[in-house]
Amino acid sequence: MPIPLTVGVNAQRFRSTIERSAEVGRGREGGLPRLASSDAGLEVKVDRVGNIFARRSGQDDSLPPVLLGSHLDTQANGGRFDGIVGVMGAFEVARTLDDLQHVTRRPLEIINGTNEEGARFSPPMLASGCFAGVYDTDWAHKRQADDGAVIGEELRRISYLGPEPVGGRELDSYFEPHIEQGSILDAERVQVGTLMHGYSSHGFLAKFHGETAHTSPWSMEKRRNALLAAARLLVEVDGIGWDFAVGGGKATAARLSAWPNKAGILSDWAQATCDMRHDIPKAADVMAERVRRAVGAVASRAGCTADILDHWAWGGRIFNDELISLVRGHAAALGCRHRDLTSQAGHDAYFLARICPTAMMFTPCRDGIAHHNVESAGLEDLEPSLNVLLHRAVSRADRR
Amino acid sequence: MPIPLTVGVNAQRFRSTIERSAEVGRGREGGLPRLASSDAGLEVKVDRVGNIFARRSGQDDSLPPVLLGSHLDTQANGGRFDGIVGVMGAFEVARTLDDLQHVTRRPLEIINGTNEEGARFSPPMLASGCFAGVYDTDWAHKRQADDGAVIGEELRRISYLGPEPVGGRELDSYFEPHIEQGSILDAERVQVGTLMHGYSSHGFLAKFHGETAHTSPWSMEKRRNALLAAARLLVEVDGIGWDFAVGGGKATAARLSAWPNKAGILSDWAQATCDMRHDIPKAADVMAERVRRAVGAVASRAGCTADILDHWAWGGRIFNDELISLVRGHAAALGCRHRDLTSQAGHDAYFLARICPTAMMFTPCRDGIAHHNVESAGLEDLEPSLNVLLHRAVSRADRR
Repeated sequence: MPIPLTVGVNAQRFRSTIERSAEVGRGREGGLPRLASSDAGLEVKVDRVGNIFARRSGQDDSLPPVLLGSHLDTQANGGRFDGIVGVMGAFEVARTLDDLQHVTRRPLEIINGTNEEGARFSPPMLASGCFAGVYDTDWAHKRQADDGAVIGEELRRISYLGPEPVGGRELDSYFEPHIEQGSILDAERVQVGTLMHGYSSHGFLAKFHGETAHTSPWSMEKRRNALLAAARLLVEVDGIGWDFAVGGGKATAARLSAWPNKAGILSDWAQATCDMRHDIPKAADVMAERVRRAVGAVASRAGCTADILDHWAWGGRIFNDELISLVRGHAAALGCRHRDLTSQAGHDAYFLARICPTAMMFTPCRDGIAHHNVESAGLEDLEPSLNVLLHRAVSRADRR
Repeated sequence: MPIPLTVGVNAQRFRSTIERSAEVGRGREGGLPRLASSDAGLEVKVDRVGNIFARRSGQDDSLPPVLLGSHLDTQANGGRFDGIVGVMGAFEVARTLDDLQHVTRRPLEIINGTNEEGARFSPPMLASGCFAGVYDTDWAHKRQADDGAVIGEELRRISYLGPEPVGGRELDSYFEPHIEQGSILDAERVQVGTLMHGYSSHGFLAKFHGETAHTSPWSMEKRRNALLAAARLLVEVDGIGWDFAVGGGKATAARLSAWPNKAGILSDWAQATCDMRHDIPKAADVMAERVRRAVGAVASRAGCTADILDHWAWGGRIFNDELISLVRGHAAALGCRHRDLTSQAGHDAYFLARICPTAMMFTPCRDGIAHHNVESAGLEDLEPSLNVLLHRAVSRADRR
C-alpha cells in the first residue's frame, strides 16, 4: 500500500537528532571536528572497514535492500550538516515509517560510510570505495594518519572493525541526500536539487625527495629542498585553477607536509595533496595532465625527485536516469521548488553508483558554506528533501 | 707559568667523548636528533633558561671568567659534531689542564647554550640571546614547539630550569670552536679557520589568515587559502635567493605549517619561516625588504591577510680584533695550516659578542655537510683547533 503524499517526516524530530548528533565531538563554535574512526556511535551491522549498516526489515527480506544514507565523519573544521543530514535523514525516514507502521516490500538499509571526508586518512570515500570493490580492504586497513595512527587499528580500538564482509552483496538502489556545499539552491530559493552528474575530479598525492643540509652555508645551486618543491607544486596547481576559472574549473592546493620542516635545515622529504575539478571531463583531464607534468617540473627545479603516490579520479555521468526521474517526479508531486544540479565534490554515491542504480539529491545550505563551523541549514531547507527521500525510498522499496 | 706549545690536548680522549656523547639520543645512522630540552645531561650551574655552566676555578676567582663552549642540541636530522665539538672541546681543554695541574689565573667556564639550533623552539640561539639581554627570559619561557610543549615547562620537567639568574655578570671573553658547516677548510686542507665576521642574516616568521571552505564548489575567486599564501611566500623567497646567488647570497624556504592542512578543505591558518643571508650587509637588507614586501603580496594574491610575527637579524663585524689575532697567532705558532673565514650560520657567539670580547674558530667538516646524519669530522680535523683553543684560552685566562 503506498503512503499518501500528504504524509511527511517529522522535521522537528529530525532537527533535534541533528542537534543531538552535533554534541558528539564539538569543535569551533557550531562546528564539528569528528574525524573518521574517532568516537561516534551507531549500531547494528558493521563491516570490516567500519561501514555501519542499520537495516529495517521488509516484507520480503530475500530481496536486495534499498540503501539510504551518507557519512557521519566531518572535516577538521567541519559543520553539523555535511554528511550527517543524509544519515540522520535516512533515520527520520525509518522513524516515519515506524509511525505509519508501514513495512516496505524490500528491506531498507541505512549506511554510514567510514572516512568519507578523508580528513584523517587518505584517500576520501575510503570505505565506500572498498564496498564497491575499487579499493582492497587490506590496503585500506593500512592507511595512516598524520599522527601515525593506522585506520585498521583505530577501527579495532573503537570497536568498529566489524565482522561483516565488505560489499559483495546485491543492492536494489542507493539514495544519498546531502547539503549542496554550494550556493545555487540557497540563492535561487530552490528546495531540492536533483543531481544529474558529478564534476570530473582528479586528485594527486605527490612525494618529493631531496637532501637535508644546513641552510646557512649551502649555496643555492647545491640545494635539494623537498619543501620548496612541494610549495612550488601548490602554487602551480593554483595557477592552473585560475586558468580554468572562467569555465567553473578549480584546482586546490590542499595539503603540504615536510620533514624535518624546521628553521635552519633543508627538508629531504615532502608531500603535497592537490585536486582539480571541471564540469567538462576533457577540461578536467587537461588540468590533471598539467598538474602531473608540474610534479616533475617543480621537482627538477628544486633539485629533487618526485613520485606520484596516488591519483584518484571520479565524476561524470554516474547517476541512474530512472532514479533521477523518480526524484524529480516526487519533488514535483510534493510541490517542492526543484531543479537539476551538478555535484562538484566527491561523495560515497560515486562509488556505490558502480554497483547499483544510484541517485543523489541536494538540500540548500546557507550561503553555500561547507567544511566550516558556520555551515548552516534551517529546518525549512531540509524538510522538503526529506519528504522526497521518504516517498522515493518507499516507492522504490515497494515496487513490484 | 705558561704551558709549552709542545703540550697538547688528548685527542683520543676527546674523540671517545664525542662518541660517548653521540650515544645520547641516536637518530638516523650516524646522526643525532637531540632537540633542545630533551634528555641530555651535564651539571654544575644552570640558569633560568637552561644554559649550563661548568666552572673551573682560577687562582683569582674574583676575576671575570674566560668562557668556552657552544651547544649540545642538534637539528632533527643533526650530526654528532655541530655544537658538540665546542662543548666537548672545552672539556678536553679542562681535562688537559687537570693533567698538567695548571690552574689559570682567571676561572674558566664551559657553556652549553640551550636551544641554539631552534629545531624544537623558535627562535634559534634562544638562551644565549637571553643571556646577552636580547630576549626577555619570561618571553623565552613561553616559546612553544609543534607538539604544543612549552620550553619553560619542558626545562622544568627535565630539571634544567635552573636557579641562576640569566646573564648580568661580567665575562672576560668567549671562545667558540665549531665545525665549519661549509667545505672551504676541507677542500683546501686547511686545519683552522679564524672567523672575521658573520654573514648578515635575516629571518622571518610570517602568519597568514584565510578562511576554511570546501575545496569542491568554492570558486577560485572566492578562495582565501592560507596554505597557498604560505607556499607562495616560500617560492618567492627561493627566487630572491637565486637573484643573489652569484654573490654568495641565499634565501631559504625553511618551514611551513597550516591548519587544517587536509584534502577537501581550504586552510584558514598558515605560517612560513624563511631566512636570507649575504656577506654584504646592504645586500642582505635588500633581500630582507624584498621578502617583507612579498609577505604582503602573496597574502593579497591568495585573498588572505598576513602578519610578520617575528623578524630576527644578526651578523656583521662582531668579533674582537685582539682575540682574532690571538687565534691566528696560536695557529701559526702551533704550525697549523690556517686561514680567515666568514661564518654564514648563526651561533651563540653572535649574542655573546654583544657583552664580551668574542672569537670563533672553525674546524674542517667533511664535504661541508652539516645538519645531516652523515656529518663527519676526523680526529685530524679537530685536534689542531683544540690545541689552539687550549693555548689561546690559557694565555687569555693567565694574562696580567
